[in-house]
Formats: sequence, structure tokens, C-alpha cells
Amino acid sequence: MTVPKVSEAHLERRREQILDGARSAFARWGYQGTTVARLEEEIGLSRGAIFHYFPSKWELFWALATRDQSRALEAFVAGGLDAMLGVFFDGDPAWLGVYFEAIGILARDKEQFERWINRTPELVRQAQERIEQMQADGELRDDVALEDISRFIGIVADGVVIRRAFALDLDQEPFVRLVRDALAPRK
Amino acid sequence: MTVPKVSEAHLERRREQILDGARSAFARWGYQGTTVARLEEEIGLSRGAIFHYFPSKWELFWALATRDQSRALEAFVAGGLDAMLGVFFDGDPAWLGVYFEAIGILARDKEQFERWINRTPELVRQAQERIEQMQADGELRDDVALEDISRFIGIVADGVVIRRAFALDLDQEPFVRLVRDALAPRK
Repeated sequence: MTVPKVSEAHLERRREQILDGARSAFARWGYQGTTVARLEEEIGLSRGAIFHYFPSKWELFWALATRDQSRALEAFVAGGLDAMLGVFFDGDPAWLGVYFEAIGILARDKEQFERWINRTPELVRQAQERIEQMQADGELRDDVALEDISRFIGIVADGVVIRRAFALDLDQEPFVRLVRDALAPRK
Repeated sequence: MTVPKVSEAHLERRREQILDGARSAFARWGYQGTTVARLEEEIGLSRGAIFHYFPSKWELFWALATRDQSRALEAFVAGGLDAMLGVFFDGDPAWLGVYFEAIGILARDKEQFERWINRTPELVRQAQERIEQMQADGELRDDVALEDISRFIGIVADGVVIRRAFALDLDQEPFVRLVRDALAPRK
């Protein structure tokens, strides 16, 4: 008997299919409202196939949230503040609403929470290096500590996500100008 | 037969007792996890008495969130940016986590959501007037529209609430300095 060879590319495509479908299901039904039957319907695969790749609903959410964070941090490392904030400005409100259900869960689960804030350590490190470089190049103020700048950016990004989750008006240009001015080198 | 006279002060005390107990229950068990039995236990009153004042669990949450927002806006009107941000910096993480469960619900309910953003219209109006006054007095920049400034402040406040909900480190002084610098008049 020969075991059929499943290529890496095939596994990756399947994984993406599952994540994209799960994202739609969560956006449509919310985290609590997303049943296994709804996941099957939205993804187009059986629960067996889905949970072969991701052992639980929570792990599906986790993988999606990690993918989002990676995109935002990669945008920051590659293109700075504007590029990163752009990722959030373009976010889908229905999906972003799911974060807040998850945060409600995380805020009461110390262990998951530790895992949550450390979910992309390598990219966080790169983003910190980028901030340090921008301070050295005179693009960001250096009279405020690196960690205070990175917290400020994180807080602003979280606030944008909330506003987007509600699909509230938000002009990107004046907002980004205020953030830039907060972090501009002092003359 | 005489109906016993219940004083306004008594009603108000009872209302506050219920709200304080409900807040503890939500903080401890989360919104979803707060059952009627747990409300009774934490508040020390029967479900009949509780729902006489607030017709549902959702209305209890709503009253608490409205009380919080009033406090923050009153602080802003009376003491400006520092006073308002101080309210959030002092927030109880367990309780703030409840907001995110609620936001997850609101983000998928258009009607409740409209009610949510308009829950303290008079105080919002006062806060807008205060911003306008600060612009006129040269305390806030006037090269950015009033609504962009008020959105920025709202976004920053929401971001602080998230960070506090996770009980993450956040030094108030450098953070408030960055917010002030974002909004300072340009020379």
C-alpha cells in the first residue's frame, strides 16, 4: 500500500482555505455564535478535516489573529507607521468585532493571555529594532523611551481597531498626522 | 390601606447597591458567565428586586457603561485631557474586560449600537464645547478639525482601556505627554 504524497503547497492551500472560511464564519456569526456546523458550511470541509488542521475553534481564532498581527508588524517593519496604520484602516469591521469577544475571554485567562501577548515574538523584536533605528535616524523622537513609543503605537492601533469594528467614520489623513506629530522629534 | 412612602434617596441607594454588585459579578464572571443566580448572590437581593430596577442583564451592563462614560466626560469637561485619561488609568482591569464582550455583541447589532454611541448626548456636547474652547484659547491645535481631535481622544482612550483590561504596564506620564504633544498648537 502506498501512502499518497501530500505536497507542502497543498497543505498550505488547505490551511488557507480553512482560515479564510473560519474568518467569514466568525465575522458573520461572532465567536460564540460560530458553531461547528457553521464552520463546516462556510469552509466547505467536514469537521474532521477542519480539526485535523486546527484542533479547536479557539485555535482557529488564534491562527487568524496571529496572521493579522504578523501583517501589521511586517507592514511597520517594511513601511513604518503609515503602512501599519493602513492595515487597520482597511480592516473588515465584522471580523474586527470578533477580537473583542476574544479579548473578553483572554482578560480572564492568565495563561492564554501570556501566550497572546507573545504570539509573534520575532516580529515584535524586529518592530522594536525598527523603532530604535528611526530614533537614531531622527525620524522618531528619542526623548521618550523606546517602550513608551511602542506602547503608544500599540494603544493607538487598538483604538483604531475598535473604531473600525463599529464601522465608524475615521479620516485616515488627519488621524495619522496627529500620531506622527506625537512621535516627531522635538526641535 | 396606606402605601409606604419610598424616598428618592432610598431608591437611589438601592439602585447604586444593585449597580455596584452587578459590576462585581460581571468583573468576576464575565458578561456571559454572569447568571441571574450570581447577580442575586453578589448584589444580595432577589431577582425580582433586581429586575424591578433594571429589566435585564443587558440593561445592567448598559447603566454601568453609561455611568463610566459620564465620569470620563465629566472629568474631561472639568479638568481636560489629563483628568479624563486618569479615569481610564485608574480603571479596574477585570471590569474593563467586560466591555470587550459587550463590544463584540454591539458590533453585530445595529440598533443597540446606535443607542450605544448616543448614550450620553448632553455630556458629549459639553466635551465638544470644551475642545472648541481649548482651541480658541490656544491650548489645543486648531489646524485639525474639532471632530478629528475628538476622534483621536476617543481612540486613545479606547486603546488605554484595552491595555488596562489586560493589566499591562503603562506609565501614565510619558503616555499623556505623547497625547498632549499630538494635540499641542503648532508653532
